[in-house]
Amino acid sequence: MLDHLHKSLPPWHEADDAIGARVLEGDLLFPVAVLREDAIAANRAWMRSFLEATGVSIAPHGKTSMSPELFAMQIADGAWGMTAATAHHVRLYHHLGIRRVIHANQLVGAADIRLALDLLAGDPGFELYSLVDSLAGVERLAAAHRQSGLGRPLCLLLEMGAPGGRTGVRSREEGIAVARAVAAAPGLALSGVEVFEGVFQGQPDGPAKVEAMLDDVLALATTADAEGLYAGEEIILTGGGSAFFDRCARRLVVPTLSRPVRTVIRSGCYISHDDNLYRRLFAELLEREPSCAAWGDGLQAALEVWAPVQSVPEPGRIIAALGKRDAGYDAGLPLARFHYRPGVHAAPVPIEGELVITGLYDQHAVLEGTLAVEVGDVLGFGISHPCTTFDRWRALFLVDEARQVTGHVTTLF
Amino acid sequence: MLDHLHKSLPPWHEADDAIGARVLEGDLLFPVAVLREDAIAANRAWMRSFLEATGVSIAPHGKTSMSPELFAMQIADGAWGMTAATAHHVRLYHHLGIRRVIHANQLVGAADIRLALDLLAGDPGFELYSLVDSLAGVERLAAAHRQSGLGRPLCLLLEMGAPGGRTGVRSREEGIAVARAVAAAPGLALSGVEVFEGVFQGQPDGPAKVEAMLDDVLALATTADAEGLYAGEEIILTGGGSAFFDRCARRLVVPTLSRPVRTVIRSGCYISHDDNLYRRLFAELLEREPSCAAWGDGLQAALEVWAPVQSVPEPGRIIAALGKRDAGYDAGLPLARFHYRPGVHAAPVPIEGELVITGLYDQHAVLEGTLAVEVGDVLGFGISHPCTTFDRWRALFLVDEARQVTGHVTTLF
Repeated sequence: MLDHLHKSLPPWHEADDAIGARVLEGDLLFPVAVLREDAIAANRAWMRSFLEATGVSIAPHGKTSMSPELFAMQIADGAWGMTAATAHHVRLYHHLGIRRVIHANQLVGAADIRLALDLLAGDPGFELYSLVDSLAGVERLAAAHRQSGLGRPLCLLLEMGAPGGRTGVRSREEGIAVARAVAAAPGLALSGVEVFEGVFQGQPDGPAKVEAMLDDVLALATTADAEGLYAGEEIILTGGGSAFFDRCARRLVVPTLSRPVRTVIRSGCYISHDDNLYRRLFAELLEREPSCAAWGDGLQAALEVWAPVQSVPEPGRIIAALGKRDAGYDAGLPLARFHYRPGVHAAPVPIEGELVITGLYDQHAVLEGTLAVEVGDVLGFGISHPCTTFDRWRALFLVDEARQVTGHVTTLF
Repeated sequence: MLDHLHKSLPPWHEADDAIGARVLEGDLLFPVAVLREDAIAANRAWMRSFLEATGVSIAPHGKTSMSPELFAMQIADGAWGMTAATAHHVRLYHHLGIRRVIHANQLVGAADIRLALDLLAGDPGFELYSLVDSLAGVERLAAAHRQSGLGRPLCLLLEMGAPGGRTGVRSREEGIAVARAVAAAPGLALSGVEVFEGVFQGQPDGPAKVEAMLDDVLALATTADAEGLYAGEEIILTGGGSAFFDRCARRLVVPTLSRPVRTVIRSGCYISHDDNLYRRLFAELLEREPSCAAWGDGLQAALEVWAPVQSVPEPGRIIAALGKRDAGYDAGLPLARFHYRPGVHAAPVPIEGELVITGLYDQHAVLEGTLAVEVGDVLGFGISHPCTTFDRWRALFLVDEARQVTGHVTTLF
């Protein structure tokens, strides 16, 4: 049940969770974040088709939405697991009943390590895979495991990086040394190789660097297998943020190792998609993989934030009632995509470029442009990078095409 | 009580709310956001001195922290009211027992207006002041009040703006026209004049523009008084974000009107302060008002985020376990301010410039610099613009100088 902690919900809608509320008519408090149900359904279907066509698994990165309801949709769609960013996320996912988690980060702090080991000790069926990229990291984890007395191993994926990148070993030689250390450490198990190739997104030579990273992953995975370093029934090869998951799905499929390879992509943004960054990245994906255009209309922007015009203080200058506390701005400012005048328009009127946000304050957006708007008009904003908009909301409302509320999802940031 | 929804709290600390946990030793899950108790106390004392010296009132902007515990401190310190950014905030504040609220924004959406009128109808002692800057706005509010049948007026502050600024009337003439419309509208009451002069913060001619805005506020306030447009026992003149509140406290004190003038500043950031944007702005304030340097050491940065070094993949390149989901980045990236090596250092070692964040991902920070660090070292980060760090946490831990937990505050974003 939603309550007074949920930004858009007026008290008179608490009992019915706002079903039927008309966002465009101001039935909810502004600003309002919505997810278009049709777009969510299209995105889920598209990803199912992609996974079927490529034969790979997905562990969607939950950090995007941190929404139990969206997680449930992803699991219902057959997700192999979920990806977590922090030990706290791992705990929360376990609390939500998720049985298999890739912790796409490294356990370093004492409490973080203890939490992971406690979860493994307390729930023998819970599967967790964390990362490591250094001998120092291996030693810390091995020591903690030894002290814990845990009766099952801590499963690790070797993190492959690249010079100038983020975490991850910088060379195959470094990688195999760390892999050997994991395999040799009592209490640790090497389960596969991990990469976050998205670190090079936005760089002109990014695609080439991605291919080189994937070459390294394959070489390292093969060498580690030849040396017999893996434990477990499968070898996990995982990569694929939301920018290059197609490349990981194509490249990290290796049928020739000594045991079955499980290829796992981790895109978290596909379910909401967006109107800017991931729209562009998806267009690039379709250029690389034209066959992916066969499944419906492709990924659709589901996430919108709606806010009213509160002031038109100068010709061509408009102030809308949304700000940094409501929408992300780290990968481009929100885009004014729809205009609606209550009592006049029958449906939101698509706009593009007629109004542009030129300044974003904590709670106000300054727009400039040619569109004639009045105080009380309502604007629908698309966003760029869904993660940093989701984390500004404890609830987002599911809406139909008329932006009438059909349900909601919560978030646990 | 804190629980599994609070990012840094491991399960074994739920029962004791983490009192005594040593952040530096990794007793909590990383990253951890902390508030230094000594700095909070110093900031509260400083603001009390400022208010006493200037004789003005404060309604701190709650959007900064949205923390009931920090609100309680501010009210205990004698705050005249609290400032809200949205109708949702107004409702939440009322729920928290706050009796006087400046809604420093305009009520536009149907539900937003209804919520405000409902609160006024249901709680005769609740005081609310909202803003208006246009005849269109006045008409909407008057119509809604008429339809509601509310037996008391909706109190409004005329919002004074400036050309090229945000909301607010652009001239004294426009302002007096709106003020007359408010005074003439049944159901509406003109309670004073509001300005957000902080809109020009960061501009070379910002200070001059601030003075011009304050001139306009005074002129408008005086004219409206001469025309007998005010209702209520006091005339409220309010301005003062965290950049220029000294100027508002000096300039908006007018003893010559027909009834008492209540000057209200609205700084929200003073209680946590920061290490970058507001540190600079406070230095500018002390230059303008050297007498303010008399009260202790001035405002102190209370808010820190702590995270471990998880990887040192290349010489001079360090990856720490915090990111955009943990710390604000809209007014400068977090600053590495302290280095601590468990088992080696007795206390955090101050650093400045030896390590600089050069890239911030959702959950990782890339640092470059000369400081020799190892996997497992812990770094303390100062932040810039507290608002956008507070809203990434449901709980922040109060700590002593050793960063040992003494309590916590929650947030309700």
